[in-house]
Amino acid sequence: MFDTIAVVGATGAVGRLIRTLLAERELPFGRIKFLASERSAGSTIEFRGETHVVELLCPDAFDGINLAIGSTPDPVAKEFVPWAVDRGCVVIDESGYWRMDPTVPLVVPEVNPEAARNHRGIIASPNCSTTQMVVAMKPLHDAGRIRRVVVSTYQATSGAGVVGQADLENGTHMACHGKDYEYQAFAHPIAFNLIPQIGSPKHAGYTSEEMKMVLETQKIFGDDSIRVCPTCVRVPVSNCHSESILVETEKKITLDQARELFASAPGIKLVDDLPNGKYPMPRDCSGEDATFVGRVREDLSCDNGIAFWCVSDNLRKGAATNAVQIAELLATQGASVS
Amino acid sequence: MFDTIAVVGATGAVGRLIRTLLAERELPFGRIKFLASERSAGSTIEFRGETHVVELLCPDAFDGINLAIGSTPDPVAKEFVPWAVDRGCVVIDESGYWRMDPTVPLVVPEVNPEAARNHRGIIASPNCSTTQMVVAMKPLHDAGRIRRVVVSTYQATSGAGVVGQADLENGTHMACHGKDYEYQAFAHPIAFNLIPQIGSPKHAGYTSEEMKMVLETQKIFGDDSIRVCPTCVRVPVSNCHSESILVETEKKITLDQARELFASAPGIKLVDDLPNGKYPMPRDCSGEDATFVGRVREDLSCDNGIAFWCVSDNLRKGAATNAVQIAELLATQGASVS
Repeated sequence: MFDTIAVVGATGAVGRLIRTLLAERELPFGRIKFLASERSAGSTIEFRGETHVVELLCPDAFDGINLAIGSTPDPVAKEFVPWAVDRGCVVIDESGYWRMDPTVPLVVPEVNPEAARNHRGIIASPNCSTTQMVVAMKPLHDAGRIRRVVVSTYQATSGAGVVGQADLENGTHMACHGKDYEYQAFAHPIAFNLIPQIGSPKHAGYTSEEMKMVLETQKIFGDDSIRVCPTCVRVPVSNCHSESILVETEKKITLDQARELFASAPGIKLVDDLPNGKYPMPRDCSGEDATFVGRVREDLSCDNGIAFWCVSDNLRKGAATNAVQIAELLATQGASVS
Repeated sequence: MFDTIAVVGATGAVGRLIRTLLAERELPFGRIKFLASERSAGSTIEFRGETHVVELLCPDAFDGINLAIGSTPDPVAKEFVPWAVDRGCVVIDESGYWRMDPTVPLVVPEVNPEAARNHRGIIASPNCSTTQMVVAMKPLHDAGRIRRVVVSTYQATSGAGVVGQADLENGTHMACHGKDYEYQAFAHPIAFNLIPQIGSPKHAGYTSEEMKMVLETQKIFGDDSIRVCPTCVRVPVSNCHSESILVETEKKITLDQARELFASAPGIKLVDDLPNGKYPMPRDCSGEDATFVGRVREDLSCDNGIAFWCVSDNLRKGAATNAVQIAELLATQGASVS
């Protein structure tokens, strides 16, 4: 039981979903507070039938708060998280800023719940493209020890925020009428196009988004010897990231075993019936909390490989749902809640 | 020099492009004839300023024809190709029907021109998703001997013909207005969606399109030991297929070597400047004959791997351009032209 919790960045796309999940799910808390930057402070929010005024994000706002769930840009998280921690508040942070800090656990409840126990006030939630992949990897890793991952992503515009989604809608509308459109979130047109760059150049020709998939995966599994080769691509889909994933395991996993492992793993829904045209597609997975897996096959290119297709709502399991699940985990573990 | 050539399936999307290429390029021929099924026979076509009546595709239509370039559905190719060959006509066939016949060479002029010499009247042109991949693989294979390929495709709706392109346009228009649309070419909506199935279930959970990428690649390189793991996905892009490709070579190829090899290979245009946001995108490659390569990186998941992004116009290099290039190759080789 948390006495008072706060949602930081409460008016953003993910913040809105965090509020919905907190209203619907069973996390036990007494009072709730909504914090946002100057632009949104003062506006009102309805929550479980009551009207709340959004308060300004500032150091004193965390007085008396036990738990904060934050979804803000990295520079904001860099600033506000120490304010909260200094006041004895535990922060579950969605931003990228704290994830690779060695003192901060990076947690996906289906994968490494035990890591949450050892926090020092901050628990980070991974990047959306990483989260769904590690959920899908988990049962295969437990059964056969994954040594290598080759992943190509098909990422939705909602990953670039509400502005990204608006860009797709407006850009498509204009393209349909043969007109140009000035994109706000993307460096190139995304309507009827693909952009093989997400994030900025980071390491050896890989982008920041791609390196997140490498480093966060290793950290979550606590195994730097898992090698990951990612290619991240933006596609003209509004919501839900899709990933074509190939894993190589130390111990051979057969097709039947892989299907059974996926079918019984927490957080995974297996939709895999190619002869009847059934597999996960972004339009069917939006609004769902699960990680969807389909097109499961034994690799034709190596003896110990499993190939599959993975789709998940990047705003939910990729962000809001994972953060709220971490909060539920803390409530169960009773870990470090002052 | 061919005395008389024919274009079979002259009124289809690829047939139209073959006509354009024949009008523009340097293939030497005397007369030209256009053949099509009953639905289109009798219509007229303008070619180099002259009006031609489209003739009915029937056995006698090949009397006196030296070379035919065919772009038809598989069942039509099964029927018409023997009519032509029996009359001494060499056929360059775009369909899938003859490709894996052991007596039929499967040719991509940049990759295996020598195979065209040994034809017995039929030369097949590969599937669009295979063609651009093998063009990109060729310089790496020559330098380091490719042992393994992992490829995930992002395939345009034009691969499903003019009906597929119309589906994307109409489906998107209706979706923008919140309305349903009955798709003709696709089993699921493609507007703002991804369909991880192209073709029908074929082998061990892989689709017919995916197995084409495996078997055609092995045949073109004349090396069954090259192992390929493909995942083929339809994306809401009108024209140009994109592919995220990872190759493993026997002999290590460095990043600098890979870039040099791509830059100097025939048929390839290297567009690779991530810091300045330059890489191939479908909207920039439509109407081009080249295979575009970018995002070249050393693999992070194995020591002898090169990862890259490859885009090509699937109606051009993936079909019409490759067929016309084979015809030009025959004209140069003077092979078996009666």
